[in-house]
Amino acid sequence: MAGSPELVTTEKPQAVVLVSGGLDSATTLACAREAGFELNAISFDYGQRHGFELKSAGKVAEFFQVRRHIRCPIDLRAFGGSALTAEIDVPKDRSGDEMSNGIPITYVPARNTVFLSLALGWAEVIGAADIFIGVNAVDYSGYPDCRPEYIAAFENLANLATKAGVEHEDHWTIHAPLVSLTKAEIVQLGMKLGVDYSLTHSCYDPDSQGRSCGHCDSCQLRLAGFAEAGLVDPVSYQ
Amino acid sequence: MAGSPELVTTEKPQAVVLVSGGLDSATTLACAREAGFELNAISFDYGQRHGFELKSAGKVAEFFQVRRHIRCPIDLRAFGGSALTAEIDVPKDRSGDEMSNGIPITYVPARNTVFLSLALGWAEVIGAADIFIGVNAVDYSGYPDCRPEYIAAFENLANLATKAGVEHEDHWTIHAPLVSLTKAEIVQLGMKLGVDYSLTHSCYDPDSQGRSCGHCDSCQLRLAGFAEAGLVDPVSYQ
Repeated sequence: MAGSPELVTTEKPQAVVLVSGGLDSATTLACAREAGFELNAISFDYGQRHGFELKSAGKVAEFFQVRRHIRCPIDLRAFGGSALTAEIDVPKDRSGDEMSNGIPITYVPARNTVFLSLALGWAEVIGAADIFIGVNAVDYSGYPDCRPEYIAAFENLANLATKAGVEHEDHWTIHAPLVSLTKAEIVQLGMKLGVDYSLTHSCYDPDSQGRSCGHCDSCQLRLAGFAEAGLVDPVSYQ
Repeated sequence: MAGSPELVTTEKPQAVVLVSGGLDSATTLACAREAGFELNAISFDYGQRHGFELKSAGKVAEFFQVRRHIRCPIDLRAFGGSALTAEIDVPKDRSGDEMSNGIPITYVPARNTVFLSLALGWAEVIGAADIFIGVNAVDYSGYPDCRPEYIAAFENLANLATKAGVEHEDHWTIHAPLVSLTKAEIVQLGMKLGVDYSLTHSCYDPDSQGRSCGHCDSCQLRLAGFAEAGLVDPVSYQ
C-alpha cells in the first residue's frame, strides 16, 4: 500500500551448514557467514574411525558462534563396506594419480545423500531455506556425491520432497561454495575469511593424541594445499 | 561366442524393501517377491511414538522370509517438528476432506528422503540395484514425498550419488508399486499375493497392548480400505 512503512527486519536468514570439523567445512562456515547467514551447524557421528573430527567440529562451531549445533548419531557400521567405518586398512602414501584413479576405498555408500537428507529435515524445522556443504570436485574427484550435478539433483529433490518446497517454488538452495576450488584456493579463501585452521582436523587415521598421520589421502591433500598456498598447516603431525 | 554355453544363474536379484510394519510396506514386500526379487528389509527406529510398528516390521519380515533385515536407529526427535516424534496430539476423527486438505501435522520433515538415502547406502553395499517403497499418493496426498515426481527425482539422484550409478548407466530403480492404488486396491492386491495383514500395524496412537485406536488418520484410512474392499481388518481395535 502506498505510504505504508516498509517492513524492516534485521534478522539474518538462517542457513544449515554441514560441519565435519575438517578444513573444507570450516571454510564453508566462513563462506556462509560472509554471505550474511545466521549459522546452524549439523555434525554426524556415523561410527567413523576418525572420531577426533567430531571434537574439531565442536571447536569450529564455537569459533564461528553458530546459533545452534546438533550432532546426529547414525550408525552406518551396520552397512559395512568402507574403510572409514569398517576394519579395512586406510590407504597410505598414494600418489596423486592413484588417488584420482577411480572411486577410493574410503567412499562411504550414499554418505552425502544421508547427511544432506538429515540437514534438509532439520533446516525445514528451523525455517532455513539454505544448506551449505563443503564438497569439492577438483582435487578429489573420486566421490560421485561431490560433483556439481549431484548437488543440483539434490536441490531438485529437496524442492519436491518437502512441505516448504511444495509451498514456495524453488525454495531450497544447496550451496557448495568450494566445489570448483583447488585445496590451495580453499586454504587461501579461508585465511582471507579468518578461519582458524588450527581447530580443524582432516586425518583419516590419527594417533591416540589426535595427531595427524600425514600419509593418508586426506592428510596428503591438506599438506599439498597449504604448501601450494605458501602457508604452513598449523595442526600437529606424528 | 557362438557355441559357448549361456551363463545360467539361479540366483535372484537382490532388492531392498523399506518395511515399517504397516499395511502398505507388507503389500510392497509381496510385490517385490512377486517380481522375482530376493528380499532384504530395512526398518527405521526414528523415535516414533508408535513403536509397536517396529515389532510388526519384524513379524512381517519373518513372514516373507527375507534374506536380511536391518533396523537403523535415527533420532529425528532432536529436530522436533512433528506429531509422530514430538509431544503434539495426534489428530483424531478427521473427515476425508480435512485429511486431504494440506500437509498434515503428522508429516515428518524429509522422512522418506532420509529413509531412502539409508536404503540406498545399504543397497549399494549388498549389491542390490532395486529399492521398493510403499508410498501412496491417492488416498493420502498430503505428504510431498509420496508423489511419483518425488520418486523419480530420488532415482535420478541415486544414479548421480553412487559408485554403482556412476559405473552403470540407469543402475538404480526406485519401485513404488502402490503409488497409484487406493487403499482398497492395496488390500485386494495384498490378499491376492498372500499377505497376512494380522501381522501389520498402522495406528499412530495405539494403547499399551498395541491395540489400534481406530480414530487417527492412519486407522481411518485402513478401516475404510478394508470396508471398501469388502474385507474385515484382522487387527485388534480398542
